[in-house]
Amino acid sequence: MDRTGTVVIVGVGLIGGSVGLALRDRGRALRVVGVGRDPGRLDEALRLGAIDEGTTDLARASAGADVVVVCTPVDRIAADVVRAAGSSPAEALVTDAGSTKRAIVAAVESEAVAAGKFVAAHPIAGSERRGVEHARADLFEGRACILTPTSRTPAGRLDRARAFWAGLGCRTSEVDPAAHDEALARTSHLPHALAAALAAVVGPDLVPMAAGAYRDGTRVAGADASIWAPIFLENRRGVLDALDAFDAALGAFRAALDAGDEAGIRAWWEDARRNRRAFDARNAPEAVASDGPGG
Amino acid sequence: MDRTGTVVIVGVGLIGGSVGLALRDRGRALRVVGVGRDPGRLDEALRLGAIDEGTTDLARASAGADVVVVCTPVDRIAADVVRAAGSSPAEALVTDAGSTKRAIVAAVESEAVAAGKFVAAHPIAGSERRGVEHARADLFEGRACILTPTSRTPAGRLDRARAFWAGLGCRTSEVDPAAHDEALARTSHLPHALAAALAAVVGPDLVPMAAGAYRDGTRVAGADASIWAPIFLENRRGVLDALDAFDAALGAFRAALDAGDEAGIRAWWEDARRNRRAFDARNAPEAVASDGPGG
Repeated sequence: MDRTGTVVIVGVGLIGGSVGLALRDRGRALRVVGVGRDPGRLDEALRLGAIDEGTTDLARASAGADVVVVCTPVDRIAADVVRAAGSSPAEALVTDAGSTKRAIVAAVESEAVAAGKFVAAHPIAGSERRGVEHARADLFEGRACILTPTSRTPAGRLDRARAFWAGLGCRTSEVDPAAHDEALARTSHLPHALAAALAAVVGPDLVPMAAGAYRDGTRVAGADASIWAPIFLENRRGVLDALDAFDAALGAFRAALDAGDEAGIRAWWEDARRNRRAFDARNAPEAVASDGPGG
Repeated sequence: MDRTGTVVIVGVGLIGGSVGLALRDRGRALRVVGVGRDPGRLDEALRLGAIDEGTTDLARASAGADVVVVCTPVDRIAADVVRAAGSSPAEALVTDAGSTKRAIVAAVESEAVAAGKFVAAHPIAGSERRGVEHARADLFEGRACILTPTSRTPAGRLDRARAFWAGLGCRTSEVDPAAHDEALARTSHLPHALAAALAAVVGPDLVPMAAGAYRDGTRVAGADASIWAPIFLENRRGVLDALDAFDAALGAFRAALDAGDEAGIRAWWEDARRNRRAFDARNAPEAVASDGPGG
């Protein structure tokens, strides 16, 4: 597989730092340049081996880039993509790692130069932790990376974006930006909101009586508001729709419980459990294999 | 510490099997007798070393018991306690491991003989898995076990129940049965309902785009309906109240999101995160220690 020359990572936190570690660990780039606003954080990224050099100057770094990966919070991605596209060589690829796609793609596509260089991406990997000190070279291994090209995305850039993310260990696929946001509203943004709402109703007085179901159900409530508030707002419509669907599902349970309808509760539970098993089957290859070839 | 003579475990599944393994592993009983309805499952428990012998005859097993631990589903516990109390020696202790307490305690206390032998308990430990094949000798180590004595509980029996559960590795504490159910509605029963409702809105088509937040948020939806439907119903009022509190918390998020109120979303998130951190502090001794002696 090809090796990219210079990769510029804009935003060297958990995700950007993991991109850098993966690139260097796998020998996928000749040089990895980190761009950030805080020189101290860039020094830390350098020390941890996530980048070869760090700078606060996005335009200057982009001028020497073969690939720019924008890993800033979702409310800053479009502006950073446009700036990187404006400063980078004509043949550069600009991609991102944002958890929302529709608004970012629309904003970038309103700028002709940026639209011609950009392929939006969402590697579905992360952690409730934040910062380059939690970055991992294997964060993307075997994880899905959703690309959301549109009719305006140049085919050559799309091929390069696929190869770039596959080079970090991702399994890439493509969907429409709006379909991405609708799906992720349910699979990721909703679970984050639920985790926080569950944490909200279990005060410190109840914590001694909390165990595994609480621990796992609230884990992602430990994530950072500065990351998540923008994600919810960028995908406001999708998250509101997901909340409606969730309210309906939980409402069905409540109605059965209120009526003392044991058969209804069991049937509701079994339907939900079947969905969860589809996830287990997909994520445990041995279980899939036992269902025969092709899983 | 004392060693108990004969311990009878009624219901040798994940919890009962773990009681047996812990008793035998720690040398806490001279003999462990398992009572079940399915001789095949009892043979399995015997083979796994969870019990010394198995029988389907609860009355006969109880006749030789120093301690009876009832580990059947919550809708069967009260009847099994009453039967075990009726067949056991005058000095026997009967305890249980049910996830709900109010209705069980009320039902047992309507029977004078059973009331005089019974100390209700809830070791807060478990798994979404079921069956003695998933039992573990260390399931209770360091876990909370809530005892719910009432004014009718004999003090001597309470002391013995504390020692029994502590002997399996639990940290015991005591609360009123109704307070237990109200707390557990939020810390355990609600998270189970939320996990299933989340699983319900993520169909197999979306599973390829689900990752960690979904995985952890739905883990306990893999649990068994035959265990959980009775728990929800036994604690119907508590769970309905917890659902109300949850709806209010999630509703506050929705209102802030609907209004595009970023500061409101951040403040809401930070409040929830603070609660979650109280759990982390309690469950990570080093973090507590750093706050000074006494944590």
